Amino acid sequence: MGGDFGPRCIIPSVARCLEQDSRLNVVLVGSPEPMTSLCASHQLPADRVSFIHTSEIIHADDAPASVLRGKRDSSMRVAIELVRDGRADGCLSAGNTGALMVLAKALLGTVEGIQRPAIMAALPVAGKFCHVLDLGANVDCTARQLFEFAVMGSEAVAELTGIEQPRVGLLNIGSEINKGSLRVREVSELLRDSPSLNYIGHVEGNELFQDRADVVVCDGFVGNVMLKASEGLVDYMQGEMRRAFADNLLLRLLSPVLRRSLRPMAERLNPHQYNGVSLLGLQGVVVKSHGNAGQPAFEAAIRQAVRACQSDMPQRIAARLARCRGDLL
Amino acid sequence: MGGDFGPRCIIPSVARCLEQDSRLNVVLVGSPEPMTSLCASHQLPADRVSFIHTSEIIHADDAPASVLRGKRDSSMRVAIELVRDGRADGCLSAGNTGALMVLAKALLGTVEGIQRPAIMAALPVAGKFCHVLDLGANVDCTARQLFEFAVMGSEAVAELTGIEQPRVGLLNIGSEINKGSLRVREVSELLRDSPSLNYIGHVEGNELFQDRADVVVCDGFVGNVMLKASEGLVDYMQGEMRRAFADNLLLRLLSPVLRRSLRPMAERLNPHQYNGVSLLGLQGVVVKSHGNAGQPAFEAAIRQAVRACQSDMPQRIAARLARCRGDLL
Repeated sequence: MGGDFGPRCIIPSVARCLEQDSRLNVVLVGSPEPMTSLCASHQLPADRVSFIHTSEIIHADDAPASVLRGKRDSSMRVAIELVRDGRADGCLSAGNTGALMVLAKALLGTVEGIQRPAIMAALPVAGKFCHVLDLGANVDCTARQLFEFAVMGSEAVAELTGIEQPRVGLLNIGSEINKGSLRVREVSELLRDSPSLNYIGHVEGNELFQDRADVVVCDGFVGNVMLKASEGLVDYMQGEMRRAFADNLLLRLLSPVLRRSLRPMAERLNPHQYNGVSLLGLQGVVVKSHGNAGQPAFEAAIRQAVRACQSDMPQRIAARLARCRGDLL
Repeated sequence: MGGDFGPRCIIPSVARCLEQDSRLNVVLVGSPEPMTSLCASHQLPADRVSFIHTSEIIHADDAPASVLRGKRDSSMRVAIELVRDGRADGCLSAGNTGALMVLAKALLGTVEGIQRPAIMAALPVAGKFCHVLDLGANVDCTARQLFEFAVMGSEAVAELTGIEQPRVGLLNIGSEINKGSLRVREVSELLRDSPSLNYIGHVEGNELFQDRADVVVCDGFVGNVMLKASEGLVDYMQGEMRRAFADNLLLRLLSPVLRRSLRPMAERLNPHQYNGVSLLGLQGVVVKSHGNAGQPAFEAAIRQAVRACQSDMPQRIAARLARCRGDLL
């Protein structure tokens, strides 16, 4: 049980989700304390919650490879083993992303036909979402792997959002400079030749925020830099805004009024509503919550994990991949 | 004479810069009209301004390769030829970036020891700037080319900002997932081994906006996606803000007061102050203005071009490169 706030955030989130969804059962994996006492104080229903106590902790700076060899009694490893052994339908973690990916890949394996799993997150755009993958699991990707990301993303987004034929785009740079790398041009051809996908062509960086596509595919290096730069820019602008308010008496006085008036906008941009990053392409459901997720954000991640379990995402991805492969023959 | 607003924006900007800098002389290259009549109405000093009339136009969607073969009487080509022939110290354009790079490389050649020129722009951070290169001239880069970008960026930023030993970072993704691509690890070693550079190590996407480095190096694909995503995100947030004001009577009423109070912040984030992208590594000074630059922004680009000419940037880059190569031997 990881993340910056640990059980103190996770237990009340679980309590709320158990209340809201009567079909949900939860296995809590982690150190006995403060998990047990928190569960008691939040009155979690004993018949729908079970505990597995673990003794080791994976830290944010642990190298994924060393986690694979050692720390056999970490909550992350044990939770994934529950999925592998059919004792849980899915696993949700707020811990070290790299470690989660390596453990999940090693213990669960990938869906048939998928070479590498990918990490997918949602950017909020105009009240909708633009889903981007990969966000850092795969630094160097082949054209075939990028094609598989498009298939996985399309299937997952159809399931998560209800959009029947999600618009799939390929992240690329302006044609006025050139038409992208050799690899991007290669996967672009594969995507064009696959009628099972609703492929809309190249998407430039700025178009990620213009509701051009529902799914955008890129390699993990580009995706990670883009996502983190966007987060950094938002933080920076919020900081500038705070400074502007602190430095100006009139703005300080108006602050409560402004806050109330801007609430609808803040809600649209609220990261809590889109917490929960999917690890796609695994033989099992694994969802990652942002490490610094607070309670509403962690609840959103739980709901996303539940949805992925209910739709049997791994099986759906395998079936969709077989269909798309057929297109290319 | 290109850009979205053409001579109507450029001529008044030139008039102002001529007024402010008595050593500046300008050659205006473009279609005779409306250039000549605008110059007359803005009373440009005849002894410091000359004209070259051209008959062809390079469009935003012209392929760079076709521009190289054809359109020999375009303003862009003729302006670069002036630099090549020693009739101008530098060239400033608001036209098609890809065409500008291809023409400049072909007509001017690269600085000795530089394999490929790069495009560098400045992101505003906490009242300072983070300079990033490359932004799209080079899609696939070798480690050696990325090393050259670091050298060029360090030298150019020292000159443009007055910082003696600019902090140089390498754009990379979180170490918790892995330590970046093979190429990035390779250039990281080269940079560590070069004491002539103030190399500070890896910089993640969010750290671009945290004043961690003065110069950040990346390949043109990643840089282009990052820059355009940042621009797209700012546009999106401004749009949300406008909608919030339009939808709320109280905010509409307060709008003039808020605008005045937030002006200092808006000034810090004002893109006009950092217009002007440098094409580094060429045997001559070439600066690109944003296509949609208005008058204050175009003036900033003129000032940047003047500064690059005064410092003899190409010569300085060659000397710095020789020094850094010495480090590596």
